[in-house]
Amino acid sequence: MSERPLPRAGLLEGGVHRFPVRIYYEDTDAAGIVYYANYLKFVERARTEMMRLFGIEHEAGRQADGTAFIVRRAEIEYLASARLDDEIVIETRLREIGGASILLDQDVMRGPTLLVRSTILVACIGAKGRPTRLPSALRAALSAYNETSQVVTAHAR
Amino acid sequence: MSERPLPRAGLLEGGVHRFPVRIYYEDTDAAGIVYYANYLKFVERARTEMMRLFGIEHEAGRQADGTAFIVRRAEIEYLASARLDDEIVIETRLREIGGASILLDQDVMRGPTLLVRSTILVACIGAKGRPTRLPSALRAALSAYNETSQVVTAHAR
Amino acid sequence: MSERPLPRAGLLEGGVHRFPVRIYYEDTDAAGIVYYANYLKFVERARTEMMRLFGIEHEAGRQADGTAFIVRRAEIEYLASARLDDEIVIETRLREIGGASILLDQDVMRGPTLLVRSTILVACIGAKGRPTRLPSALRAALSAYNETSQVVTAHAR
Amino acid sequence: MSERPLPRAGLLEGGVHRFPVRIYYEDTDAAGIVYYANYLKFVERARTEMMRLFGIEHEAGRQADGTAFIVRRAEIEYLASARLDDEIVIETRLREIGGASILLDQDVMRGPTLLVRSTILVACIGAKGRPTRLPSALRAALSAYNETSQVVTAHAR
Repeated sequence: MSERPLPRAGLLEGGVHRFPVRIYYEDTDAAGIVYYANYLKFVERARTEMMRLFGIEHEAGRQADGTAFIVRRAEIEYLASARLDDEIVIETRLREIGGASILLDQDVMRGPTLLVRSTILVACIGAKGRPTRLPSALRAALSAYNETSQVVTAHAR
Repeated sequence: MSERPLPRAGLLEGGVHRFPVRIYYEDTDAAGIVYYANYLKFVERARTEMMRLFGIEHEAGRQADGTAFIVRRAEIEYLASARLDDEIVIETRLREIGGASILLDQDVMRGPTLLVRSTILVACIGAKGRPTRLPSALRAALSAYNETSQVVTAHAR
Repeated sequence: MSERPLPRAGLLEGGVHRFPVRIYYEDTDAAGIVYYANYLKFVERARTEMMRLFGIEHEAGRQADGTAFIVRRAEIEYLASARLDDEIVIETRLREIGGASILLDQDVMRGPTLLVRSTILVACIGAKGRPTRLPSALRAALSAYNETSQVVTAHAR
Repeated sequence: MSERPLPRAGLLEGGVHRFPVRIYYEDTDAAGIVYYANYLKFVERARTEMMRLFGIEHEAGRQADGTAFIVRRAEIEYLASARLDDEIVIETRLREIGGASILLDQDVMRGPTLLVRSTILVACIGAKGRPTRLPSALRAALSAYNETSQVVTAHAR
């Protein structure tokens, strides 16, 4: 784990995208902790920045060929709570690249502590809202990235 | 003030639209009170329901003639705080009907206590995002409503 | 399915709590649909109102004996999207009452169409944040309710 | 205006705190633009980071001496809209340091374009929720900062 401050768009390194989030009042609730739905916001920010690093912009994509990405399924396990002023990190890993979808593991960390574990299935849809194949440039980038990261992961262990 | 429970869309009576809001965890923050930005959500819900009572639906409007309503200015004074589980009421009064805009007073009440006072300027814009005159049906409804309510208000005082 | 308008706190009937939600601008995103995290807000509103019908108030509970309810796990499947101005209904069913937790199925419906399916595990925690047994009054109420509803459900089919 | 990327906590320079915000789906609404209440979130993030640069942490403050900061009044003028994927900057300037309050101007910029103009009155409250004098360390820091910045501003013009 790097000690340098993470850039705002996060960092892709060794098969993990690490994205920093600071907790503000807007994120918390009267129980003094981050409201449970808001972790879905954080992991979406992380996915967006990871995709941007792969060359995919939401708006550009929608305007160019009408493709968009939509979440089909989310599983979230809440283990511990983030609190006001906390600095947390979203760790995103590709688990599976399907024909028209991507399966991601997204963990919410505070330092070495795992707070929330999520698995997100993102589907690619075309202009009419039907499932459509991932853009080939993205598929190529993801596959290249994934192979590298597996090797890196394998060597590192 | 009526003791009957308010309907979900609120009630137009005597020049005031009264709209009920229940406070949930999502609305609060770690200070134990409603997060300050969220009152703008509540008053927007109230405006939407008041407009619906006047026959204006957001989506229908946008699809029919491309007109939409957009907030140009908001002034908010925070006097006291709503808390989890509170039942509050948004009271909306028309202050001024302009050519292409409406000025509203929107108070947030908990029982007889004024919590938040706001004044909202809503502009009507056309398909290209330019200011456009209020739809004539809305103008007629608002004017008729406003005249009645002023009479009612005058008599009541 | 009842044709009467649902009360704001929803309706418990035949083992299902049905809770109405209107979609406002705040709930939607630039894709023109409800933002995926916001369904977790809707189902939490529904749980809160169902609990209130069972005699449990968040704040009252926390002040009386320090017990609180916290979500441990959420699984959400997104099948179709709610849109601006939609009127949706959250249907909540008890699936399992554990010693210190409750497992719920919460479906988001638009008319007869299932939009989102979720399963939520809610844990009861004590003043120190540790798992604690469900308050006995709640357990009794839930059990009585559940038995009735299973009978009702069985007869209805 | 600096061309270097702004750090995540923003930059205090020449009497202005400049804080970057990226627009994600969560910030937008079905009109395709940032939902009007969300600008209050952005300016609060900026205030929090500016205060942190002055040595004030929300939680630390509340735990140490019970003082907290609360918004008493907000005035917001919406001139143009931010959109998905936009990178905007919140520019915060101290306008007035009162005995128990701070008045701030907070502008939302996209490049050279002013999108939203706000003026925010923040009050300092004590453990019992009553107005209390600004912590003296903060007052000293703000005053020193403000004098410097006025000089800088004056020279720059």
